[in-house]
Amino acid sequence: MKARIDVMLKTGVLDPQGAAVQHALGALGFEGVNEVRQGKVIMLDLADGTSEETIKDMCEKLLANTVIESYRIEIL
Amino acid sequence: MKARIDVMLKTGVLDPQGAAVQHALGALGFEGVNEVRQGKVIMLDLADGTSEETIKDMCEKLLANTVIESYRIEIL
Repeated sequence: MKARIDVMLKTGVLDPQGAAVQHALGALGFEGVNEVRQGKVIMLDLADGTSEETIKDMCEKLLANTVIESYRIEIL
Repeated sequence: MKARIDVMLKTGVLDPQGAAVQHALGALGFEGVNEVRQGKVIMLDLADGTSEETIKDMCEKLLANTVIESYRIEIL
């Protein structure tokens, strides 16, 4: 089975990487870019039958820093 | 309008970050993790009416290195 985890900085946490991308898009002439936020996507190929609970555990323990990041699990 | 861009390393391109995550999950006792690949997710808040063509242009020119990375655009 495959799962996809999106890890984004929580709203309100400064995202310098996103700000740099926004600035660079402006410098390249792209207009109307109001906000850019950058995060991680982690694609997991797991043994069949791995529970969503286990995947959540992976996120809490390793994949996301839950102090500043939120995550979303999607089973594919 | 909002758009979401997924940027992943192409199949066959070595992903050391993903390999490190896979190893760390194993070290934490998670079993059955066959493969991990890590990429970027970029959330764009754009002026209404920005065409998908323009977003594709942003990907080609800045957001993805199309030699080794593939991207996927999703309008939200």
